[in-house]
Amino acid sequence: MRILHHLPLSPYSRKVRLALAEKRIPFELKTERVWERREEFLALNPACTVPVLVEENGFVIADSYAICEYLDEAYPDTPLIGRTLGERAEVRRLVAWFDTRFAGEVTRNLIWERHLKRALGKGNPDAAAIRAGYANLKPHLDVIGWLAEERPWLAGPHLSLADFAAAAHLSALDYANDVDWEYNAAARDWYSRVKSRPAFRGLLADRVSGLEPPAHYADLDF
Amino acid sequence: MRILHHLPLSPYSRKVRLALAEKRIPFELKTERVWERREEFLALNPACTVPVLVEENGFVIADSYAICEYLDEAYPDTPLIGRTLGERAEVRRLVAWFDTRFAGEVTRNLIWERHLKRALGKGNPDAAAIRAGYANLKPHLDVIGWLAEERPWLAGPHLSLADFAAAAHLSALDYANDVDWEYNAAARDWYSRVKSRPAFRGLLADRVSGLEPPAHYADLDF
Repeated sequence: MRILHHLPLSPYSRKVRLALAEKRIPFELKTERVWERREEFLALNPACTVPVLVEENGFVIADSYAICEYLDEAYPDTPLIGRTLGERAEVRRLVAWFDTRFAGEVTRNLIWERHLKRALGKGNPDAAAIRAGYANLKPHLDVIGWLAEERPWLAGPHLSLADFAAAAHLSALDYANDVDWEYNAAARDWYSRVKSRPAFRGLLADRVSGLEPPAHYADLDF
Repeated sequence: MRILHHLPLSPYSRKVRLALAEKRIPFELKTERVWERREEFLALNPACTVPVLVEENGFVIADSYAICEYLDEAYPDTPLIGRTLGERAEVRRLVAWFDTRFAGEVTRNLIWERHLKRALGKGNPDAAAIRAGYANLKPHLDVIGWLAEERPWLAGPHLSLADFAAAAHLSALDYANDVDWEYNAAARDWYSRVKSRPAFRGLLADRVSGLEPPAHYADLDF
């Protein structure tokens, strides 16, 4: 069976899980506690990060960017990176936006500082970083809301990896109850549409030991 | 004329310049002082980052990942992202390694802390970050040297975007005289091979006001 090495709160793993599920590519999840730096895992990915995809024939692809581009090339049905050069540039611009800027300004400040740092013995949460994370989330929700009002999906006419990248970060934050869904109605409506996709079901069933999600996390009518 | 909005010390801009030049795609450089947040530039790229490529027909592509993938799709001669699925996964894994890990562990700690932070009024350089940057550079040079000894080029049999991503970061650091080329002979030999490509000439002619490069910066026989 195809295996995806992942961590439940990793937005990069979540993005790949959504892409695989939307393409109806069967896979099995294996949780990789990357901080343990297992030798067998380092042999798969010297960067020691998740996600890593291992195909049934043993082909290994590390890094969510490499995996998502690979999936669209190897399994071109249900394309997720756009059809025209213009659509593709827009999908990739937005994926980079969420995986770099949103990640640095929001996800890292909240998921890392609030939920992972102390658990991994890397010191106490930095209150200023957490405040910054909450403050930064608002303009990002405004961007999502603005895009969702301008276009059928974030990058244009088709559901794409841009939606999945954004939803991957937001769903990890939502698991930790860090998103105020009252703040931007258009962003909330867009998230509700993505969350209702069958591809999303796996994420909604996630449970992280020691961290219960809020009741609305798995609720499609949140 | 095709325009690349860039900054001379931005490794992401350098990577795109190398890709364009290797593909013999003519372009004109425009320096964008992103910290000024010009409205015309924000209209091109709301993230307000370089590089941004504007094609002659007005088509705008923002973000170095989106630009490089676009270039390999729109100008497939001289492919830079590999030929097979396996080569492509390896090129992209390494591009992500240099643009994320190397960038965070080395480039940011040296280029940002030493040369940009004070100039942009963002406070004083953090001595601990600078020390970490120099310390982190060594294992990264070892990785490059190891790859260069195992394979003709970093990602495999062909010169690729992986070489350009790595050389883009190293050349920016080298401009600031931050690389000890005596440290790893294989890494130095590999860099010398990349630096000798005609595509590299534009980078070697760069001059940043207020920061002179060391004499060896433009020397192919450094």
